[in-house]
Amino acid sequence: MKQQYNFTIPTLGTCNVASPIALSTQIGDRIANYVGDDEFIVNDAHAQPGETVTFKKEHLIEKAGPRKKIFFDPADAHAAIVTCGGLCPGLNDVIRAIVMCLWHQYGVRKISGVRYGYRGFMPQNRDSMVELTPQSVAYIHRMGGTVLGSSRGYGEKTKEIVDTIESRGINMLFTIGGDGTQKGSLQIANEARARGLAVSIVGIPKTIDNDLSFIQKSFGFETAVSEAVKAVHGAHVEAHDAPNGIGVVKLMGRESGFIAAYTAMGSSDVNFVLVPEVPFDLEGKNGLLHQLYNRIEQRGHAVVVVAEGAGQDLLESESAETDASGNKKPGDIGLFLQDKIKQFFKQKGTEINLKYIDPSYIIRSTPANPIDSVYCTRLGTNSVHAAMAGKSRMLISMINNNFVHVPIELAVAQRNCIDPESPVWRDVLEATGQPVWMKN
Amino acid sequence: MKQQYNFTIPTLGTCNVASPIALSTQIGDRIANYVGDDEFIVNDAHAQPGETVTFKKEHLIEKAGPRKKIFFDPADAHAAIVTCGGLCPGLNDVIRAIVMCLWHQYGVRKISGVRYGYRGFMPQNRDSMVELTPQSVAYIHRMGGTVLGSSRGYGEKTKEIVDTIESRGINMLFTIGGDGTQKGSLQIANEARARGLAVSIVGIPKTIDNDLSFIQKSFGFETAVSEAVKAVHGAHVEAHDAPNGIGVVKLMGRESGFIAAYTAMGSSDVNFVLVPEVPFDLEGKNGLLHQLYNRIEQRGHAVVVVAEGAGQDLLESESAETDASGNKKPGDIGLFLQDKIKQFFKQKGTEINLKYIDPSYIIRSTPANPIDSVYCTRLGTNSVHAAMAGKSRMLISMINNNFVHVPIELAVAQRNCIDPESPVWRDVLEATGQPVWMKN
Amino acid sequence: MKQQYNFTIPTLGTCNVASPIALSTQIGDRIANYVGDDEFIVNDAHAQPGETVTFKKEHLIEKAGPRKKIFFDPADAHAAIVTCGGLCPGLNDVIRAIVMCLWHQYGVRKISGVRYGYRGFMPQNRDSMVELTPQSVAYIHRMGGTVLGSSRGYGEKTKEIVDTIESRGINMLFTIGGDGTQKGSLQIANEARARGLAVSIVGIPKTIDNDLSFIQKSFGFETAVSEAVKAVHGAHVEAHDAPNGIGVVKLMGRESGFIAAYTAMGSSDVNFVLVPEVPFDLEGKNGLLHQLYNRIEQRGHAVVVVAEGAGQDLLESESAETDASGNKKPGDIGLFLQDKIKQFFKQKGTEINLKYIDPSYIIRSTPANPIDSVYCTRLGTNSVHAAMAGKSRMLISMINNNFVHVPIELAVAQRNCIDPESPVWRDVLEATGQPVWMKN
Amino acid sequence: MKQQYNFTIPTLGTCNVASPIALSTQIGDRIANYVGDDEFIVNDAHAQPGETVTFKKEHLIEKAGPRKKIFFDPADAHAAIVTCGGLCPGLNDVIRAIVMCLWHQYGVRKISGVRYGYRGFMPQNRDSMVELTPQSVAYIHRMGGTVLGSSRGYGEKTKEIVDTIESRGINMLFTIGGDGTQKGSLQIANEARARGLAVSIVGIPKTIDNDLSFIQKSFGFETAVSEAVKAVHGAHVEAHDAPNGIGVVKLMGRESGFIAAYTAMGSSDVNFVLVPEVPFDLEGKNGLLHQLYNRIEQRGHAVVVVAEGAGQDLLESESAETDASGNKKPGDIGLFLQDKIKQFFKQKGTEINLKYIDPSYIIRSTPANPIDSVYCTRLGTNSVHAAMAGKSRMLISMINNNFVHVPIELAVAQRNCIDPESPVWRDVLEATGQPVWMKN
Repeated sequence: MKQQYNFTIPTLGTCNVASPIALSTQIGDRIANYVGDDEFIVNDAHAQPGETVTFKKEHLIEKAGPRKKIFFDPADAHAAIVTCGGLCPGLNDVIRAIVMCLWHQYGVRKISGVRYGYRGFMPQNRDSMVELTPQSVAYIHRMGGTVLGSSRGYGEKTKEIVDTIESRGINMLFTIGGDGTQKGSLQIANEARARGLAVSIVGIPKTIDNDLSFIQKSFGFETAVSEAVKAVHGAHVEAHDAPNGIGVVKLMGRESGFIAAYTAMGSSDVNFVLVPEVPFDLEGKNGLLHQLYNRIEQRGHAVVVVAEGAGQDLLESESAETDASGNKKPGDIGLFLQDKIKQFFKQKGTEINLKYIDPSYIIRSTPANPIDSVYCTRLGTNSVHAAMAGKSRMLISMINNNFVHVPIELAVAQRNCIDPESPVWRDVLEATGQPVWMKN
Repeated sequence: MKQQYNFTIPTLGTCNVASPIALSTQIGDRIANYVGDDEFIVNDAHAQPGETVTFKKEHLIEKAGPRKKIFFDPADAHAAIVTCGGLCPGLNDVIRAIVMCLWHQYGVRKISGVRYGYRGFMPQNRDSMVELTPQSVAYIHRMGGTVLGSSRGYGEKTKEIVDTIESRGINMLFTIGGDGTQKGSLQIANEARARGLAVSIVGIPKTIDNDLSFIQKSFGFETAVSEAVKAVHGAHVEAHDAPNGIGVVKLMGRESGFIAAYTAMGSSDVNFVLVPEVPFDLEGKNGLLHQLYNRIEQRGHAVVVVAEGAGQDLLESESAETDASGNKKPGDIGLFLQDKIKQFFKQKGTEINLKYIDPSYIIRSTPANPIDSVYCTRLGTNSVHAAMAGKSRMLISMINNNFVHVPIELAVAQRNCIDPESPVWRDVLEATGQPVWMKN
Repeated sequence: MKQQYNFTIPTLGTCNVASPIALSTQIGDRIANYVGDDEFIVNDAHAQPGETVTFKKEHLIEKAGPRKKIFFDPADAHAAIVTCGGLCPGLNDVIRAIVMCLWHQYGVRKISGVRYGYRGFMPQNRDSMVELTPQSVAYIHRMGGTVLGSSRGYGEKTKEIVDTIESRGINMLFTIGGDGTQKGSLQIANEARARGLAVSIVGIPKTIDNDLSFIQKSFGFETAVSEAVKAVHGAHVEAHDAPNGIGVVKLMGRESGFIAAYTAMGSSDVNFVLVPEVPFDLEGKNGLLHQLYNRIEQRGHAVVVVAEGAGQDLLESESAETDASGNKKPGDIGLFLQDKIKQFFKQKGTEINLKYIDPSYIIRSTPANPIDSVYCTRLGTNSVHAAMAGKSRMLISMINNNFVHVPIELAVAQRNCIDPESPVWRDVLEATGQPVWMKN
Repeated sequence: MKQQYNFTIPTLGTCNVASPIALSTQIGDRIANYVGDDEFIVNDAHAQPGETVTFKKEHLIEKAGPRKKIFFDPADAHAAIVTCGGLCPGLNDVIRAIVMCLWHQYGVRKISGVRYGYRGFMPQNRDSMVELTPQSVAYIHRMGGTVLGSSRGYGEKTKEIVDTIESRGINMLFTIGGDGTQKGSLQIANEARARGLAVSIVGIPKTIDNDLSFIQKSFGFETAVSEAVKAVHGAHVEAHDAPNGIGVVKLMGRESGFIAAYTAMGSSDVNFVLVPEVPFDLEGKNGLLHQLYNRIEQRGHAVVVVAEGAGQDLLESESAETDASGNKKPGDIGLFLQDKIKQFFKQKGTEINLKYIDPSYIIRSTPANPIDSVYCTRLGTNSVHAAMAGKSRMLISMINNNFVHVPIELAVAQRNCIDPESPVWRDVLEATGQPVWMKN
């Protein structure tokens, strides 16, 4: 049972305001309870027989939920919500849950929606903020995407962002975004603190790739896998019904191959899954092309799923060869693979029918399925409880099936990746039947 | 009421065998009836007040359905089924219906499935034929694609195909395919007749693009539109949620833009739909790029749907410019448009977020929806009734909501296209709000 | 080619206003055209060789579409939309299309939505009318049901309805409803004419059962069948996976069994389909129970689909037996069958596992699928063209694949039913394998 | 961190056979590893700062996964699979995974499928067992239900079951079923042990209600909630679109209301959710009827979701009143509520439109969604690893996101229920806005 991380959550100050939510303070009366700041869980559930552990407070993870005493007087609260980066199923569910909880549970009446990510905080865009009410968000969860709009970048414009926060009197900011966004959140929190502003910054971790640490699964991930399975099934049908048919499906996953891995397990149609965490060769006896050739010889059809971040070393060496000026520009592994496979079989004199599918945008724009919807709703609700209690510089998260608070520093320090020695990858190998190691 | 086409259906000879199907021969007994060779419908339902028409037999269309007397003795029948060309929702439903009707209604026990299209008839592939039974096809309609496999080409290898037909004793051939396939069917029928073989050749018109003439709608078309609408909706969400977002969706439609047109009407998200039948300019005041620019200026997002056969003149002139050797290779209008749009807005100094979606393979590999499934089942069943009655060189079709027989010659003589002066295109223009004419 | 119905459409007067829609008046310029009042189609597409027909104007069906000259000045137009009766997929699509066409194509700015059917016209409810705009209806087609609300009844309150029409200055009424609603429309039109009011009454026929005459298919029908197939598939799985499993699914269809029939053809899982048009016995050698017993003996599982209006004679005789006061109250054929089947097998000493499914409300509340959505959009749009041109006492319809105008009198005079001697029922029998006649 | 349960897993004996699966024994070589019998996790992740814990082996939970040494020689293994009780999404995925892992990973060639639950073991049904192979199960996961068939009961016929196990030489039994089934498994294991038979009995916990203890979530639960949300949405549309519309949806949940609770959170349409764990009154100021009346007065529509096991006390007192012989027969809470609501509003003189939906069979027969499919696959695979290693009298489970082994005794000792003081119920109350306590 490893205890190594510091999970202490910063707060804006003492909580003196009585929560307007009527909950119980005693166990046994069959009425739901407030959550205390003394409720914790462990991060690592593994244990050895005979092992003795003394739990230090800083190594335990604070449970999320409504506090009995809160920091902000709801009458004085001004919340802002911003969505950043690529689309992901469930964004609207999170927005809706935050608005509903602020309004109905706490009575907060000033809720601003920031348009198109952090750029909505830029001076020239300040006036584009929209007022959010239960009525305006009532049905948004039935639509994919985000009603606020989203975009990448501007996270480093900390000064301008905090200028807007200050001038608008925002004291509660919900940042729905990934790694880059949350690094931005941290800078915003630092700058606000430096200016002496009591602003609660609570992040809701958004990463369709599931590559953020200290969160059991990211919202939208399950919906994404479900949609990806459909695309893979299409690739399988196309491959199966053509002579020597090969389907290649490129899925999201720049740093981590979770979507590709779960899609392979969730469909029974994938023969090779390529992820950033597990390097592979193209050429040689162990390489992908040779393995694929064997499969085609034996079975007459094959499906390859490739995460967009897989095989970047192959792309780079390729650009190195072809680009005279020495620039190594990032390539598209899907199209790259498509070309390599076609060349290889042409050389072998084997006719193939290769179909290439890139379903990324269709996946990203899908509405959350009901299970993701429940999850988003609860993430949103718990992020409000945290912000009202003056918690800041934290992400709302789920660990060991408990909603918890995680310091942003911890979460952005490292990526969540597939460990090739983990049960997940073992089960992927079993589901695909692909070689354990495709390097020579 | 125009009467100009000759709809006479060739037959293999006199029908002397009593149908094993027990139906009624009289109207009014509340029992379903045989269909007579004297039941016809008109092709053109339009009429003018005062107009007088005398219907000639050759201009009327023969109704499909079970005949009281049939040509083939079921005990002697050997049917073969072949699927050719690209995948299309419903192929397995048609195969299943043919097998079920042959087996259960007529008692035919020899049904061969030809693998991978016409190439399955080639001498080296003859042994790959599979025996089809009710059991082997029972659940295939739940899967997309075709259990027989499909491929393009080999339709011109008439001699080899008829050699196989002859050597295997096949006397009934069901060809499920599009324009090229049916031209091949005709050659096969000619060759078989020349050899004195009594082989019934019945085509089931398959064209996901809905571009075959003399058929009200092709099977799989409705399923294809339903799937395309999903992709367009994804493009809309992506476009709507990004600053100056533009979604470009490429859909099937080499000669005819029906899928693109119906997709635009079935979603409310399309602003420009480009089809092969309606030429357009890129440049100039009326051109697409300028119109798109106006839309972005005014609304901040746009969706463009382009049929793969649209704007081929633009592609050609482009290749002419860039290709020194003078070869005009067919290009990809979707990628071409993507580039042109990006260039145009870059020149204008307007940042855009363009997302390109090509959902073709996902659409093609989808199982038929229940309405298409009903349609496929009835097409398959009626094609069996026709073949058993010794009809040949014909397609099974639906015209004015009746299942009918159409000579292959007629159907392959011309493409079914969108008439820009038709109500369909008028309603597309209304649904998109795009300019009537995008040429200068 | 039978010509027996009078299809003449009443109009409110001469059309003197130039249409604001810019269309072409000439053929060949590749621009969509106005539709003339001299464009007709025939109702009956059947013809006999040698038959000579002279088409009388009153027997031909007027084509729908935008007229060059219209009756109403858009600035003076006040349209009202009402939805009546049970829910049906596509209601919101029709509402949306009417609003969009009135607003964008004709420039009409006064569009009132009547709440909860005809009851919204009652004096006490007049103030509940809502203003409809493109913005308020923009996304409603993504939701099932009707944003206006619906209810049954009040159609006979002609005086009160016309009072409201008169007092509110409504001169264009779109009634979306079935048989009863359209009979009400006719009375409203009569009363308005008697009062000298120039009100255009245009019905959009709504019947999930597809039981209205003179319309090729009613909107929402295809979506309903698709949903029903899912429920039947569930019943099949439940039946198949239990010892002697029997699934009984009750579907809509009070007068006509089209949904049940198409659902049986669209799934391959139905063994018995019971519709109002084809009577059947329960008892006796030919009766359903004996046939079902045989099926269970031979195959171990069975699925029965029953339209809610099937077997009413059996229900009545049953109530006669059990109800001492002699009242024959309408019963539920689904629950009735369930009981009878259980009793029968209990008597036989055969254990069965019967699962009863009634998916009606789930089906009715589903949003229209894309093909129904296209159809609803075009029905709505064409109903606006008709109303603007001063047509009245008519339904918008599709016949022989053309959008047309049909007098309400004709459409409500008789129900559209399944002819047991038609190809549809023949194909149902083939798909289910059930006996042609289940009476002794 | 409570440590109170004994998680020791019984085994059949020493593992002397080398596993045929090639995995690594060292960490750091990037190759997936065998799992050791010395790898454990804790059950309770909660901890207090300063708390000191010494972990005893019997209180820790053994991790699942492939062992380096196994008990059975694959050549001698004869596995049997049985599915019991009501249908649940994912049954076929579990069956498929067990067969695939046995066959491909371990080389086991004797795999028997038991038909229709434990009754398939009865002497008269022994011959109905089917041989399972990768080919026969290849596509079954695309279908709902279980290819083996299922039924309730016969679990107490331990002697007959073990007779069959013995006579057929079965030494590995996979029991896919719920509480009753697993109690049966335990008896089978006891009897086998008493006879000196080395039979590994591994249960895969199946409960669509999620009411089994010591498993994080049961397979099929997420799919069930997703389907239930659709039905609730239909109820909402029906309620919303009618004057004073009330939708009542009955969902599964005899002992535990998890499906109802998650469905309420996953849709935004539920106003009252009634579960077995939280009693409620009908009458009185706090009672459901009065609360519902208020909602209708204020909003004009309402949706009630009721788990089938909710309010059993109300049903009982009701039957007590009406049943003269004193028998309290279990009633249907859904129909009961429907009647009570209608009566109440009739007394109040308020017209309502109540629609009642029972989607249970549609939900149960649905195929697993991709996420459930992944979960089922991994449960199945890990159950094989356990059985091959000679583990017995255990369930395969997931706790704190790890696949683990749980003794059957523990799992069947108590039900998993919603704690009304838990975050789940708190979030349900927030999502519905219903009163915390509906008793007077």
